[in-house]
Amino acid sequence: MPFHQYFNGEILPIDQSIFKTNDLGLLRGYGLFDYFRTYNGLPFRWDDYWKRFENSARLLKLPLSVSQQETEKILADLFAMSGEQEVAFRFVLTGGYAPDSVNVVEPNFLIRTEALPQDNPAGRLKGIKVIPYEYVRDLPEIKTTNYVHMVLMADEMKRQQAADLLFHKDGEVSELTRSNIFIFQGDKLITSDRNILNGITRRVVLELAQPHFEIEVRPVTYKEVVTADEIFTTSTTKWVMPVVQIGDLPVQDGLAGKRTLFLQKLFEELVADWGK
Amino acid sequence: MPFHQYFNGEILPIDQSIFKTNDLGLLRGYGLFDYFRTYNGLPFRWDDYWKRFENSARLLKLPLSVSQQETEKILADLFAMSGEQEVAFRFVLTGGYAPDSVNVVEPNFLIRTEALPQDNPAGRLKGIKVIPYEYVRDLPEIKTTNYVHMVLMADEMKRQQAADLLFHKDGEVSELTRSNIFIFQGDKLITSDRNILNGITRRVVLELAQPHFEIEVRPVTYKEVVTADEIFTTSTTKWVMPVVQIGDLPVQDGLAGKRTLFLQKLFEELVADWGK
Repeated sequence: MPFHQYFNGEILPIDQSIFKTNDLGLLRGYGLFDYFRTYNGLPFRWDDYWKRFENSARLLKLPLSVSQQETEKILADLFAMSGEQEVAFRFVLTGGYAPDSVNVVEPNFLIRTEALPQDNPAGRLKGIKVIPYEYVRDLPEIKTTNYVHMVLMADEMKRQQAADLLFHKDGEVSELTRSNIFIFQGDKLITSDRNILNGITRRVVLELAQPHFEIEVRPVTYKEVVTADEIFTTSTTKWVMPVVQIGDLPVQDGLAGKRTLFLQKLFEELVADWGK
Repeated sequence: MPFHQYFNGEILPIDQSIFKTNDLGLLRGYGLFDYFRTYNGLPFRWDDYWKRFENSARLLKLPLSVSQQETEKILADLFAMSGEQEVAFRFVLTGGYAPDSVNVVEPNFLIRTEALPQDNPAGRLKGIKVIPYEYVRDLPEIKTTNYVHMVLMADEMKRQQAADLLFHKDGEVSELTRSNIFIFQGDKLITSDRNILNGITRRVVLELAQPHFEIEVRPVTYKEVVTADEIFTTSTTKWVMPVVQIGDLPVQDGLAGKRTLFLQKLFEELVADWGK
């Protein structure tokens, strides 16, 4: 597994010390990222991920030093060097080295090749528990590197055998730490469009659900979530993951919902055939 | 100026690439810092800065690998190597290298030696302009590395010839991007105690003001700020800095206030004699 990484034009071993210590990502949290994976060796929904990355960069006023086409070539090289069947890629774009630790001079652009995270097939079958957490992400549309609350609560999640935090504020639910939320009211599928990161898996699931369910994309209240018939969350790594418990409260009978499992199956079929 | 830096037990040249790319400070914004300087070659209010640093670390659940005494020795070495009359030190403590990019294994601890920032004697005499900005810092008591809004607004501040942002939310003023705020109503000195970082300069100024003014430490409304007789802001680099304009609105006659300049003089005398 000789994974490599790209940094400002160079390809380097993944373990190499790269960052100088006056980087604005490190000193000021001024950075954004994106994360996606391959299926059958091909980046999934690459155009969508790239567009989101470009959008984050534009909103943080960080110019990109490479085009989508050039980046595609880099990804192919990193993939080939990995020798793996499948990999994940993490883009990190920071404000770069700043002599005054405030003003951006030239961004640093990193692409890490990473092993796929451990899969959770039991979770996808049985569903996960989440902990309600009063918080709304700052600049939610931008995939900034600010995940302080997630790391801060990692121990507590383990203690409560929960897989994630459910962010809510002023009676409204936005998202989980790294994934979007959907609920079913009967055959009606509802997902929030406020204070969220626009998930690519979220978008794919909306496309897959379109022919089968009535869809509402709008703010979702906390009350709607805890009284929903089914709940699931979507992300690059979680796919379509049933949520069966919120804090101490089971979602209905505490089992993964049948509509959720139906969408999960559609998603699994899609990625299994990706690029074929 | 051969500045050096300390990193996890080693002393290294300041320009050396040090950080591997799976550091939680870089990937997840999970990091905190502190910043202080010498006067007459001695760290100013070292005990106070160390205690604040310890407090931030405790709140982010990051254990420290060195004691205050060991750190003091490192600072003395870095200072001696710099060959400078005065330096600033920046502590950075991150969540460290994380194989899963979520869970803390062992923090990374960095101490950078830095040149003093450019002094602004004209600003201290004439006062600065600030831009009102609707925001309250997340986890304000912790000196986290999250300064995204400050970096994002750096260009706009330059365009408006403003020196800083004045954070306010729900009718209440908390602080500036890197400094605390004080107002005078007549001879009454008021500073906020809510949603702020506990500034060391703020504390020193409260001590200096004690014999001379009535003091109120309590939440401060936006309306009180814009109608105040005098306003100033305090920080390690700004000392006691008059604020004479908020957006387009001058503070009273737009000149630095006489009580402010009196406190500024007390502070300047204190640091001039530091360690003597």
